Amino acid sequence: MAKRAKVHVFLKPGVLDVEGKAVEGALHGLGWKDVANVRVGKTIEFDLTDGADAEAEVKKMCETLLANTVIESYRVEVA
Amino acid sequence: MAKRAKVHVFLKPGVLDVEGKAVEGALHGLGWKDVANVRVGKTIEFDLTDGADAEAEVKKMCETLLANTVIESYRVEVA
Repeated sequence: MAKRAKVHVFLKPGVLDVEGKAVEGALHGLGWKDVANVRVGKTIEFDLTDGADAEAEVKKMCETLLANTVIESYRVEVA
Repeated sequence: MAKRAKVHVFLKPGVLDVEGKAVEGALHGLGWKDVANVRVGKTIEFDLTDGADAEAEVKKMCETLLANTVIESYRVEVA
């Protein structure tokens, strides 16, 4: 059965998020001074035509390719 | 009241997702042949210290800065 997987990848807390800082600075510059703690992450969505044991497979993909587990954490949703 | 906003930004359907294609090719090369329709998007999370009318404000941020609405669509969650 085909399944849709969503993977959310974020930098771990404590790792400097340069892109997030840039977005925060830009939002402040545009007048949104109440914005804080901006973190920018990646979302990867895809179909799995063979849905057998999908969540474990997607986690393997994350460990191998999708996330750099030294500095990034990930969350997997399979539906 | 402080609120946490999440913005998901994706390329619109029909717009070539080069990063998604690259990820798809890499996953196929690693043996996951059943992966299809990979789309890579961005997630921006931040705190709003002034939560008044937060959802409308975040939508304005998307239109102004966070998304390129010519080629990207976005989804806002405020909690």
